Amino acid sequence: MYRPEIKVLDCTIRDGGLANDSHFPLETVRAVYKACCDAGIDYVELGYRNSKEMFDPEEFGPWRFCDEKDLRAATDGIRNDGTKISFMMDAHKSDPNDIVPCDESVADTIRIATYVKDIDKAIRVENAAHERGYETTINVMAISTESDWELDPALEQVEKETHVVACYVVDSFGALYSEQVHYLVEKYQRILPSREVGVHMHNNQQLAFANTIEGIIKNANFVDGTIYGLGRAAGNCPLELLLGFLKNPKFNLRPVLDCVAGTIKPLESQLDWGYMVPYMITGSLNQHPRSAMAWLKADQREEYRDFYDKMLGLVE
Amino acid sequence: MYRPEIKVLDCTIRDGGLANDSHFPLETVRAVYKACCDAGIDYVELGYRNSKEMFDPEEFGPWRFCDEKDLRAATDGIRNDGTKISFMMDAHKSDPNDIVPCDESVADTIRIATYVKDIDKAIRVENAAHERGYETTINVMAISTESDWELDPALEQVEKETHVVACYVVDSFGALYSEQVHYLVEKYQRILPSREVGVHMHNNQQLAFANTIEGIIKNANFVDGTIYGLGRAAGNCPLELLLGFLKNPKFNLRPVLDCVAGTIKPLESQLDWGYMVPYMITGSLNQHPRSAMAWLKADQREEYRDFYDKMLGLVE
Repeated sequence: MYRPEIKVLDCTIRDGGLANDSHFPLETVRAVYKACCDAGIDYVELGYRNSKEMFDPEEFGPWRFCDEKDLRAATDGIRNDGTKISFMMDAHKSDPNDIVPCDESVADTIRIATYVKDIDKAIRVENAAHERGYETTINVMAISTESDWELDPALEQVEKETHVVACYVVDSFGALYSEQVHYLVEKYQRILPSREVGVHMHNNQQLAFANTIEGIIKNANFVDGTIYGLGRAAGNCPLELLLGFLKNPKFNLRPVLDCVAGTIKPLESQLDWGYMVPYMITGSLNQHPRSAMAWLKADQREEYRDFYDKMLGLVE
Repeated sequence: MYRPEIKVLDCTIRDGGLANDSHFPLETVRAVYKACCDAGIDYVELGYRNSKEMFDPEEFGPWRFCDEKDLRAATDGIRNDGTKISFMMDAHKSDPNDIVPCDESVADTIRIATYVKDIDKAIRVENAAHERGYETTINVMAISTESDWELDPALEQVEKETHVVACYVVDSFGALYSEQVHYLVEKYQRILPSREVGVHMHNNQQLAFANTIEGIIKNANFVDGTIYGLGRAAGNCPLELLLGFLKNPKFNLRPVLDCVAGTIKPLESQLDWGYMVPYMITGSLNQHPRSAMAWLKADQREEYRDFYDKMLGLVE
């Protein structure tokens, strides 16, 4: 019944870090890491390794940089029976010189996030990561805004010029519907015949889990989730839903359920993520959620009609 | 781009009434009715007309019975440019004698909810409603638990023995995935060639909107939503998402957004609906949400692991 090729990656700390400038306490990161190891998740992503030249370490927490000492503190002493550890590097916000040789690192895998326009930067980072011994992926963000004539040659470059195990469809805006997911996953397979396709979905329109399933139906084998959907704005595909769907007996849902109750749900008092009307509006209009996030921080946060008219350009 | 045949039905008050024994204040019902009229929704369902012999009017609110005087109070003085008014009758909990002639009623349409085993009761109610002048539908509940060899002949009866405009796939447990929606909608079309197919989805696995789209893709033309997803347990397909997807210029999203902010979101302080882990567990295990609803009322509501093990029959 299940497809053993499917690899699940938990990016609770990495994507959730976009909601709190990566300021998770160490115990939170250790709890998420432990839950993923105990649940048999294939990969756990503990943050970004972005450049301290571009992000101020006074302003951003340790999981925006993933220094090796912090990765060690997050993982030391926790039993791991094969869950790989990854961090993400933004193609345009990271420095390949920050990549230490893999055999000196806690991490196994580096995922490079990029816009299509930055694909050459992404390939430079990927080549450096591969050379230093890491498994790599390239994750193409804001995919709902890319035209075929720019995306297709970028994917051709990924196929020819990189060593990635997978290339991802990243629906940063939570704008895709199922037929678009099908179209993109099929395109990736056609242009990248020697790589796996991954999907990373956002929940602005309550479609993150659904679209992840649609990717799987079209043979995407790398799928992202976060515990209880924690993530920027409307959040991500909830890991607990994904495990319930996948049915692979190697996964154990219970540690994830414990982590929801003990670690993630308590964050609701400090962090505002999940389905909200302004996120639904930006998602359905194929816009970045940043304007919705700003709107929700202001007093008029429930003046949805005004936000809608503003997004449509009908009012200032 | 849009499909004009698609009819949208709002059942905020009817399905939401399963969360509060249909005790909505009159102003709430009027606000929802007005929002639907102003938004150009095709149908608005204001409750059940179930039997006072089977439901105690001391215990249940007026929207469990939809007396004509209450329907009149809910709708009087509100401009309506063509939104039809419906109520629902449960095949096994209603009395055909409670149906007044349509020309004496506020309502235009009666939807009959039934389990497959009660299909003959449903047909009796439908025939009575049709005879008294109403448009009718039959809504087959708990569809995820029905076997083909019982469902198929029931659908054949609906085709032969009723006058329904549409017959619905009702995913009461929020258990269906997209491929199952496709299978069921195609089956309905095959067995009911002279009727439209409807879909009514629940959100236990965050798939209500996604599955509604999947029904639409397979040519279901009657689709249910509720404002901000209000409904029993995890709730329903959010009407605001549906309108954003449908793109029919006759719909106006703004009155729905106003109703979320002014009427529905404030109910969150009294009513507990939406995605929660116990609902996700019953959905993914294809179980009625009642055990999850009971669990969430008790002190141990966040002991998700225990609930999961209980639902699997591993503990008492």
